[in-house]
Amino acid sequence: MPEALRLATAARDAARVLAATSTAQRNRALLAMAHAVSDKSDEIMAANAADMEAARQRGTAESLLDRLELTPQRLKAIAEAVKELAALPDPIGEVVEGKRLPNGIWLSQVRVPLGVVAMIYEARPNVTADAAALCIKTGNAVVLRGGSLAINSNLALTRVLANAAVGAGLPAGCIASVESTDYAEVNELMGLHGLVDVLIPRGGAGLIKSVVDNAKVPVIETGVGNCHVYVHESADAEMAKRIVVNAKCQRPGVCNAAESLLVDEAVYERVLPPILKELESAGVTLVADEKVRGLGAVLRIQPATEEDWATEYLELKMSVKVVTGLDEAIAHINEYGTHHSEAIVTEDYDAAMRFLNEVDAAAVYVNASTRFTDGGEFGLGAEIGISTQKLHARGPMGLAALTSTKWLGMGSGQIRE
Amino acid sequence: MPEALRLATAARDAARVLAATSTAQRNRALLAMAHAVSDKSDEIMAANAADMEAARQRGTAESLLDRLELTPQRLKAIAEAVKELAALPDPIGEVVEGKRLPNGIWLSQVRVPLGVVAMIYEARPNVTADAAALCIKTGNAVVLRGGSLAINSNLALTRVLANAAVGAGLPAGCIASVESTDYAEVNELMGLHGLVDVLIPRGGAGLIKSVVDNAKVPVIETGVGNCHVYVHESADAEMAKRIVVNAKCQRPGVCNAAESLLVDEAVYERVLPPILKELESAGVTLVADEKVRGLGAVLRIQPATEEDWATEYLELKMSVKVVTGLDEAIAHINEYGTHHSEAIVTEDYDAAMRFLNEVDAAAVYVNASTRFTDGGEFGLGAEIGISTQKLHARGPMGLAALTSTKWLGMGSGQIRE
Repeated sequence: MPEALRLATAARDAARVLAATSTAQRNRALLAMAHAVSDKSDEIMAANAADMEAARQRGTAESLLDRLELTPQRLKAIAEAVKELAALPDPIGEVVEGKRLPNGIWLSQVRVPLGVVAMIYEARPNVTADAAALCIKTGNAVVLRGGSLAINSNLALTRVLANAAVGAGLPAGCIASVESTDYAEVNELMGLHGLVDVLIPRGGAGLIKSVVDNAKVPVIETGVGNCHVYVHESADAEMAKRIVVNAKCQRPGVCNAAESLLVDEAVYERVLPPILKELESAGVTLVADEKVRGLGAVLRIQPATEEDWATEYLELKMSVKVVTGLDEAIAHINEYGTHHSEAIVTEDYDAAMRFLNEVDAAAVYVNASTRFTDGGEFGLGAEIGISTQKLHARGPMGLAALTSTKWLGMGSGQIRE
Repeated sequence: MPEALRLATAARDAARVLAATSTAQRNRALLAMAHAVSDKSDEIMAANAADMEAARQRGTAESLLDRLELTPQRLKAIAEAVKELAALPDPIGEVVEGKRLPNGIWLSQVRVPLGVVAMIYEARPNVTADAAALCIKTGNAVVLRGGSLAINSNLALTRVLANAAVGAGLPAGCIASVESTDYAEVNELMGLHGLVDVLIPRGGAGLIKSVVDNAKVPVIETGVGNCHVYVHESADAEMAKRIVVNAKCQRPGVCNAAESLLVDEAVYERVLPPILKELESAGVTLVADEKVRGLGAVLRIQPATEEDWATEYLELKMSVKVVTGLDEAIAHINEYGTHHSEAIVTEDYDAAMRFLNEVDAAAVYVNASTRFTDGGEFGLGAEIGISTQKLHARGPMGLAALTSTKWLGMGSGQIRE
């Protein structure tokens, strides 16, 4: 039997038990899990050291090594995050709506766990702990498949977290990681329709595409962000510069960072040079259309290709384009964007309203950085990822995104006439 | 270019325009659509007559012919249903939640259309009108692919509805049906990731499975219902009989009809015979386990096979099983059921609460028929189908199930520190 099938079957059985646990039981398990991460930090650090060593020998890039590495501080932050979840309100059992029907049946729609959540993700071991804790908080069993680079770290974390959860009274099988690094197990996991209630991929565009193309289980797409800042002709030039630089440079490797800058034709000669200079001095590589290149504001700007407009760089690189106005900006964003986070800088009320209404994205901003699209910034308390699809959840996904609902009908013998 | 791709591309463009229409515009279009169905009834009836003639020549079963046939009364009901939608509240633009963030950004989450909805369905032409009207109400463009048996009826209805919608000012391409009956177009439609925001299959288990296995676009599974009535040892025998007979016989061809009857061992000898006799006299074919057959209550009961416990008959047939008690009943339902609608008949408070809490289904009833799982019965105003998955929507799907959300952030120059 494939390992993913075995783990998902056990998770399904665990999910049925989990669904009947109380908020207090699950919060106690979270505290035990947080405690165990601190308590077993040597075991986890040793596993991570083995991953780091193997990754270095494979010649892994520094940026990836940084994502992979666990430090005592990072491990402490992981334990802290698990502990903080225990203090958040429990979405499970919330009565979403309800009424007495004309026939006398008391009907209510209540929030219940999804059941079995699967996650496929890449190098960061903190995702293992985050995902396990968020699922336990919401009464879900979880089957994890992290990147092979972090395999030892992930398995050590899973072992520590699962033992703590089971020790605190939760059912065996409620937290599991696929041990095999064989890619066949990923395909198996994606195909377990009827066992896996939702699959959340977290990682680069390649991983997301593979899951979308191959999964038979319901999927929530996350994270690919080709985000724009559009500087309208009425924009405050100083504010535009501040927002563009923040959206591009504050943390370029994340999905809500901006990748593309659009500027109105009427003002680009005045507004753009200071922005380009600041981007250049922040180390940003620029590609642009002919008008922008013609400005001669900075030394090296390569021509932007059709592919550039559609690319999420995830690094200090930005494409720049002059547009004729609001209509072209909105059309360009809806065409090339990934419907993640989009911002306009404007002092014009109508332009602001039209941008809010007509741009099709999970988050649309006026006069604010795209970087605010985040569960923490939005006050959701915790985040399992940022959905870029329209079904079930859109934008930062908090605890409620890990729940479903169920209708309860309490009658006294009613039949349908 | 495959027809489905062409229609979905046009629908995507139409959806962008639709998203910016007002409630009043869309309601006016619905009234025009309802009027057009009455006005062009000759054209629609002639197309349906052609479908009926072709179906009869192919030797189509009477029950299918009945589903296919449009009568003046049915066409009037279709127009009436479209008209009634215009009077329902518009979910689009509802502010789901919102607040001013600590940094001063006004953040609100608002309800928006999904974008492009695709539906694949079988013989009933009324689904064409229902789906088109529900999508227009919620600002979505729709691409339909009905069964080949109803092709002329569906195309005539689509033509009439689309012309009326466009005549009332909605964008061309907002309502379309795939004209080709080539199955390749179904596969094409299921694969249009990035163009189709959600695909809703409506039909038998075979259709649903094919969509789940092959779709690359997000899917909402609907309608397969292997529903149970469980008679607990404490049940009122008369109430149990009434509910079982209603759940099985009131309309056996629909998804919320019961397919399987479970009875506690402690009472089956007393409670079951009158139920079996009533089912038999209602024309129900029975299959059962050995204990039930040993009762000799009715003449012909075939042995139930393992497959029977998992089968949605959708006709006057029912499987019957004796269980040792609540634990076995819940385990059996969670194992063999399709998580649609499940009912317990009991006078015991603890049994009622455990059944509500532990049965994993879209709708769970105490002392009421499974037949109540319905958008109309639940007071949702309209129904696009009944979801049996846990993501996005579960149970009867009203207008809100055809919406997504979008976060709007209104700032004054905020950047992330």
